[in-house]
Parts: sequence; C-alpha cells; structure tokens
Amino acid sequence: MDDLLAVCAQIDPVDESWAVETQRLLDAKTKPRRSLGRLEDLACQIAAIRRTPTPEVGDKAIVVMAADHGVATAGVSAYPQEVTGQMVLNFARGGAAINVLARHAGVRLVVVDMGIREPVEADGVLQRRLGPGTADFRRGAAMTREQAEEGLVSGIAIARELVDEGISLIGIGEMGIGNTTSSSALISAFTGTPPKEVTGTGTGVDEETRGRKIEAIRHAIEHNRPDPADAIDVLAKLGGFEIAGLAGVVLGAASRHIPVLADGFIASVAALVAVRLAPAAKGYVIASHRSTEPGHQAVLVALGARPVLDLELRLGEGTGAALAMPLIDAALRILAEMASFEDAGVTDTGH
Amino acid sequence: MDDLLAVCAQIDPVDESWAVETQRLLDAKTKPRRSLGRLEDLACQIAAIRRTPTPEVGDKAIVVMAADHGVATAGVSAYPQEVTGQMVLNFARGGAAINVLARHAGVRLVVVDMGIREPVEADGVLQRRLGPGTADFRRGAAMTREQAEEGLVSGIAIARELVDEGISLIGIGEMGIGNTTSSSALISAFTGTPPKEVTGTGTGVDEETRGRKIEAIRHAIEHNRPDPADAIDVLAKLGGFEIAGLAGVVLGAASRHIPVLADGFIASVAALVAVRLAPAAKGYVIASHRSTEPGHQAVLVALGARPVLDLELRLGEGTGAALAMPLIDAALRILAEMASFEDAGVTDTGH
Repeated sequence: MDDLLAVCAQIDPVDESWAVETQRLLDAKTKPRRSLGRLEDLACQIAAIRRTPTPEVGDKAIVVMAADHGVATAGVSAYPQEVTGQMVLNFARGGAAINVLARHAGVRLVVVDMGIREPVEADGVLQRRLGPGTADFRRGAAMTREQAEEGLVSGIAIARELVDEGISLIGIGEMGIGNTTSSSALISAFTGTPPKEVTGTGTGVDEETRGRKIEAIRHAIEHNRPDPADAIDVLAKLGGFEIAGLAGVVLGAASRHIPVLADGFIASVAALVAVRLAPAAKGYVIASHRSTEPGHQAVLVALGARPVLDLELRLGEGTGAALAMPLIDAALRILAEMASFEDAGVTDTGH
Repeated sequence: MDDLLAVCAQIDPVDESWAVETQRLLDAKTKPRRSLGRLEDLACQIAAIRRTPTPEVGDKAIVVMAADHGVATAGVSAYPQEVTGQMVLNFARGGAAINVLARHAGVRLVVVDMGIREPVEADGVLQRRLGPGTADFRRGAAMTREQAEEGLVSGIAIARELVDEGISLIGIGEMGIGNTTSSSALISAFTGTPPKEVTGTGTGVDEETRGRKIEAIRHAIEHNRPDPADAIDVLAKLGGFEIAGLAGVVLGAASRHIPVLADGFIASVAALVAVRLAPAAKGYVIASHRSTEPGHQAVLVALGARPVLDLELRLGEGTGAALAMPLIDAALRILAEMASFEDAGVTDTGH
C-alpha cells in the first residue's frame, strides 16, 4: 500500500508548455494551420506527456488482462464463463482479433491472467492471479481491499517493466465474461448515473438479460455501499481483477511519462479508476475509440477524453487501441518528417 | 468520347452476394457477431467489389492530381495561386503531409500535373496537362467539353495502368488553390443545394472571403447554366482539371473491380462526377474521412457513403485516404487471419 500511495503521489500533471511548442512546429509545416485536426492534437498531447516538442515514434505494447467475474453466474452475459479462459488460450495461440491487429500495427502483445477461474498456463501468458475470479458482488464485495491493491501494484510493475524495456506507448485491453456488468457498476458508483443509463448489451444480450444486468448492479451498489470518494473501495466492491490490474498499468505508465491508449468501455473504466486515485494521470490517457456500449460515453466525459476512432466496435481485447496506434505514429511522423514552409520554398500566408 | 462511353457502360454494380458470404465467414470468427462494426462492413464491401469472399491485402496507391483554377483570381483562397505548383514540387521532394502519410501506410504515391499554371517538371510528376489552369468560371465555362473528356480519359488510363501493375486499392487526393470553390459549385449544381450551404472556409479564409466564394459560385451557376442531368456539362462548366482526372480514376478503377478510397471534400466531389456518369460506380467508392468542409456532408449523402474516419481534417492531398488505408488492410487481415470458434475450441453461443 505504501508503494501504491508513493506511485500515485509521484504522478505529475502533463506539461502543456511542450504542447505549445509542438503546435508552433506544426504551424510551420507546409499545410494550412490546424488542417490535420485531431492528428495535431494527438501530437501535442504526446509532447506534453513526454516533455519534448518532438516525441519519437517508438516501440509500442498492448497489455491485455483477463479475469473472471462472480456476477457471471447471474446470467448477465451472452457467453458462458469458460469463454474467458478459452479466449486467453486463443490469444496465446495468435488466433484472436487482437493478435491480428497487434501484428498489423507492429505492436507487442502482453497477455496477463489476473484471475481466470481455471488458470491458463500457456506460453506467453503472465500469471498475476489475484484468485479464481471475483466473488459475486450481489452478495458482498467482489474482492478484498488487499486484492484490489495487489492488482494495482501488479499493473504498475508490468507498465514499468515495459517502459524499462523501451516501450513508449502502452495500450490497455481486457477479456472477462461479465466485465461490462462490472464496468457499468463502477461508472454508476463513481458518477451517480443510474445503472440503466450506463448498462448496455455487452457481447450481445437481449433486453431481458440487460434487465438482469441492471438489477444485479442496483443490488450490488445498494448492498455494498461503495464510497465514491474512495476509489479503492469502489474498485474492490464492484470491480474485476483485470480492471484493477489495468488501472495499475495506467498509473505505472503515467508515473514514467508514457501515454496510455485505453481501448473501449472496460479499459476506459480502468483508466477512470486510475484517475480517481491520481487525478494527474488524466492527461496521460488517450481514448482510442467510441464504443457502442452506452456507459462508455459517461466514462469519456469523466475522463475528459475524445476518442480517436468511431467504428462501432464493441469487442474489447485492446482491438480499438491496436487500430488507433498507427494514427498516433502518423501524428508523430508528421511532426518529425514534414517540410516547413521555409525549407520547401512554399509561400506562407499565415492561414 | 467513344472510349469514355464504353468504359462507363462497362462498369457493373458490385456483387453483394460476396458480401453475404464474407459476413458468414466473419460470423464464424472468435468474437461476438458484428462486434468489429465498421471494420466488418469494409471487409464485406471490398468482397462485393473484388468478387471474392476473402479479398487479399494487396499493394496500394494514392493518385494525387493537381491543377490551377481560374476562379483563384477572384480572391477566394487564403493562399496565392503559385502555391499549387510549389506544393507539387514539395510532393516531388517528399516533404508534404501526403508523402509522410503515404510512407507510413506503405502506399505508392502517384503525382499528376493535370494543368498547373506553370508546368512542374520534376522527377516523379506525371504530365497529363489539359492547359495552364481552368478559365475563370464567373465569365464562362471553366474548360471545354473536350478538355473534360480528355481529363476523364487520362484518369481512366492511369487507374488501369496501376491495376495492371498489381495495385488493388486506389486512393484519390488533390492539390489546387481555388478547388474548394470549384467543388462547392459542382455539388451545388448537381444537388440544387444553395451555394451558401455547401461553401466553407477552405484552407482557412475569413467570412468576407467566404462571401466572395459564395458570390462567385452563384454567378458561375447563373451565367453557365450547367445541366445537372449531363455530368460532363457540369464538370466542364464548373470543375477543375484535377477533378476531371480523379473522376476518371474512379471510373477506371471501378471498371476493373478495384475499390477507390476518396479523400475529403474535393476528391469526393470527383467521385460524385464519376457516379453521375456511371451510377454503378457508386459501390466502388469508400469515403475515407469526414471533412470539416460543410459541402462534404452533401457529397457523402449523394454518394451514400459513410466516412471511415472523423479527425477534423481539411488538408486534402489524399491525407485522409492514406490514414484510412491501414484500417482497410486491418479489416482484410481479420478476415484472413482470425481463428474460427471451431478452430480455436471457443464456445459459440451464436451471439
């Protein structure tokens, strides 16, 4: 816990003065001012994070954390609980969507078992298990406060190892049957938004099942009374092991001045947990896409983040982060490689 | 002209039966049905275009056509006319945004002088000049009907050469000071939308200049009386040489069952010219992004196209197409490389 408090205290806000310098450099490039829109914003945000006007295009990783959820027994998902482990095996064998998209983007994939019901022991799956899945949060806390803290500390360590190995952009993704229910509960508890407004169809449930999700969340919040001012309390009572771990990854990356690309709804909720623990972490988070899950909008508002992509994705696994990463690289390459008006002998009218 | 009519007649509609087969393949992959959203749509559209359920990720090119516009003398742009040629030289030297983004996406760049005021003779710039810029359309047709036809035929030939060389996806982009004015005039004439609703700030003009653009367009339409049912008449009276050429590229690609990724406002107007000449070309056009130019929305509606990206771009040059291409590749790689539920031993509940 001391470690965790120390890391949170150590995170300092991004430094906007570098963003100003980067915008000045972009304004000298052979194009009308601001005509590359959001690409310019991304370059500036990364400059503010990395404390340099010309951040390098470096090595990238996506951390996918998986865990099981006790609430899955409430019949809230379109898929049975064993699919969590089956999909992690699929990740290990390279056949899932995130494998294809990570290869396509030239991104290293780090798969972590944070607590799948049955351990998945396959090459390339890191074991950071907090238990055999969380408890059913309708009947008590999903995990103990100690487990939540251990998950956060594990995530911090993974992020820092990646940074030590030269990674300069980290994406976060997840797998866990039942974890949209957990994420809807978290955003509802953090923001006070009624569960029905932030609960969607997840992997593809019908209205009846969606009703069960909403009921489970209502019950969990009533029964557990999470304290919105105490992020670890909210995380422990309503969260998931993978969400705890990913929140830690955000803290670890932010503490080392490394940007984090959050995938969709669940990964963004994990980023919000991190920001509630260390408000300065906010500037390090980039939202990769706008999910079709209705709760995602509330999380984006809470994070003050505008998504890069809007492709109606709702898969998770880090797929949106993998798709957005080449756009981040593109923004940085514009900054590094484009000619200035002066170099190219192009008339600059200042527009 | 016989050639042109023959090509238009030869374009057959995309074949949706292949899209159905591709969706069936995607539904067997280890992910909830349709959870990759627009990526799945893109894979299906390309299957319908290429007439195969599993189109290959192949070589790609972006054709950037440049020309000058007589209306530029009306003071409708934030940049002087010489910038068209200066920027084409910048393209030839590799310093412009499109050079950086084409390199980033691994895309071949084809730069064509369709009629810049002063010819740009630099290595790697194709010469297909229709004249030293168009005439000022406030005082008569921008070009003759013969020039418009010649431009279309040149574009068709360029597209077909690229396809013969193995290119399987073509992006279109442009450069030409004054060409948002020309494009606003074209969309206004084609759809009957009042000029002020489809005229924006282009490279960054103020409200006074925007007023001049609107006046110039009103005057041009009143004076030239283009016949909206005769696309070549509209193109000749209000268009630009690069717009004629790019419309030809769309026709040439469609005639060979190759998808075309239109960049922003001006490139999409060129695609609309092609579709007005050969309605079956519509299914071959993919809109890469939503431009901030107000006229773009009207063009997208006329094309029935939903843009892939929404990044507040307004640069042109094909930059949006270069940014969207990796997403097209990603969609096709998902189709080619992802495991099925059966292969991976993942429980499929049909959701």
